[in-house]
Amino acid sequence: MSFKTNATIAQFGGQLLKLTHDSKVTKTPMNVNVFIPSVKKASKLPVLVYLSGLTCTPDNASEKSFFQYFASKFGFAIVFPDTSPRGADIAGENDSWDFGTGAGFYVDAIQEPWSKNYNMFSYVHKELPEELAKAYPQLDFDNVSITGHSMGGMGALVGFLRQPRPYKAVSAFAPIGNPSVVQWGEKNFGNYLGEENKSKWAEYDPTELIKKYKGDDSTPILIHQGLGDNFYEAQLKPQNFVDAGKHYKGGIDLRLVDGYDHSYFFISSFVEEHAKHHARYLGL
Amino acid sequence: MSFKTNATIAQFGGQLLKLTHDSKVTKTPMNVNVFIPSVKKASKLPVLVYLSGLTCTPDNASEKSFFQYFASKFGFAIVFPDTSPRGADIAGENDSWDFGTGAGFYVDAIQEPWSKNYNMFSYVHKELPEELAKAYPQLDFDNVSITGHSMGGMGALVGFLRQPRPYKAVSAFAPIGNPSVVQWGEKNFGNYLGEENKSKWAEYDPTELIKKYKGDDSTPILIHQGLGDNFYEAQLKPQNFVDAGKHYKGGIDLRLVDGYDHSYFFISSFVEEHAKHHARYLGL
Repeated sequence: MSFKTNATIAQFGGQLLKLTHDSKVTKTPMNVNVFIPSVKKASKLPVLVYLSGLTCTPDNASEKSFFQYFASKFGFAIVFPDTSPRGADIAGENDSWDFGTGAGFYVDAIQEPWSKNYNMFSYVHKELPEELAKAYPQLDFDNVSITGHSMGGMGALVGFLRQPRPYKAVSAFAPIGNPSVVQWGEKNFGNYLGEENKSKWAEYDPTELIKKYKGDDSTPILIHQGLGDNFYEAQLKPQNFVDAGKHYKGGIDLRLVDGYDHSYFFISSFVEEHAKHHARYLGL
Repeated sequence: MSFKTNATIAQFGGQLLKLTHDSKVTKTPMNVNVFIPSVKKASKLPVLVYLSGLTCTPDNASEKSFFQYFASKFGFAIVFPDTSPRGADIAGENDSWDFGTGAGFYVDAIQEPWSKNYNMFSYVHKELPEELAKAYPQLDFDNVSITGHSMGGMGALVGFLRQPRPYKAVSAFAPIGNPSVVQWGEKNFGNYLGEENKSKWAEYDPTELIKKYKGDDSTPILIHQGLGDNFYEAQLKPQNFVDAGKHYKGGIDLRLVDGYDHSYFFISSFVEEHAKHHARYLGL
């Protein structure tokens, strides 16, 4: 499976590649952006995966997060996957902004009609890195960490706690911390995983996952949450995650920041701290 | 004349204000974004004016330039004006992306029907700073410098060379360096200033202005130009400006950067150098 290069854009001394490839697990073409900083070709590049929030394509964070500035300084690559299959042509897929297209919730769906295409967990954590590693051997997916915003912050925490790849570190911007108990999670988990299948929901809920987490807990988990974020109390509930993870030795560093909203202005204001966090645990 | 605050957005430790006010010189409501960094209230804030390129509103650069990150570090405010009147309701105003709405070219039009509203030179360099200084007395428009992209880079160079305000320094990203001899300039100057009125065109052409410039020429002029920019040779011609300004003592520092295009990815890759330039001449 190969990647088609739609654009190669010079930025911050490196290159942003806009790619498309045919995914076996979503059975659709998938877009992905990859930032490759300018470094000595001999060395392998650590990778940060950035999972975006509801409605976003790979372009939003590429244009508005400012992560590449710091990736270039520290010397890591960034992978910006899409947030769902697009064009799967399932009835109802495009009816709401917070479900279906642009809202894959980073799960592997088990309910019809979603299970055929909506397999974003396998896509993001397995197929995509495996295919990128083949096509771009300078990317070191054995030295990888993960972050994300909102739905993508949830996906990052789930990825770190389940370790489908050996993620060295995780951070999140305003993540959906406890999707099983909020409307966004109920709508998406209900459709993708089944209304009553709460044990399956728990496999994609950071708060449920950390309760049972037995892995390496030496790396701190960094989370920023704006107190001016309209989704904070109703949909995100990062405090539930913190409360459930009190036993996590590295600590959950939830930084509540006054006045900040849910937008890319919030993200770009704190990417520097997240970039430093990831650079440290990626050995940079 | 007062400003209506449409949004106050926390970012980079400061605030982005999205404002609207009624302009006397354009006779339309005008949108403007202002970034105010967090600093001690006692001190007055130096101001950088950022003039955007064709089609842009104040939001594009606010979302994609990342100037605010550096403004916050150095401690200056940024004013992001709009690129034209909007809603003047002139026949033909919305027919092309490179003329009329979103393309005021930072001139005071003298031709009918444009002269009633399309007075962006007076708006940007006089009315807007005067009104902002009244409404936000912490902004120091006596300690101000100017930059911009493409059409806005041209507007910035023109503003610096004509000094309708006491601009301390200027820089530009891929400016239209010699509008009188390129299609963009001919179309806009022809309509706004008159097809044959070449002496008037020269008042808004950086290459013509620097030939006759007698002011303080101690401050270097910083320009970045991407060599992968599709508009470089046909529309921008920064080399014409450099050639015409060989007598300028501070020097025109034209940095040709390999591979870079005309997009905000290009701008955001070099804002750090421009921010340092302006901070220096704003006394920061």
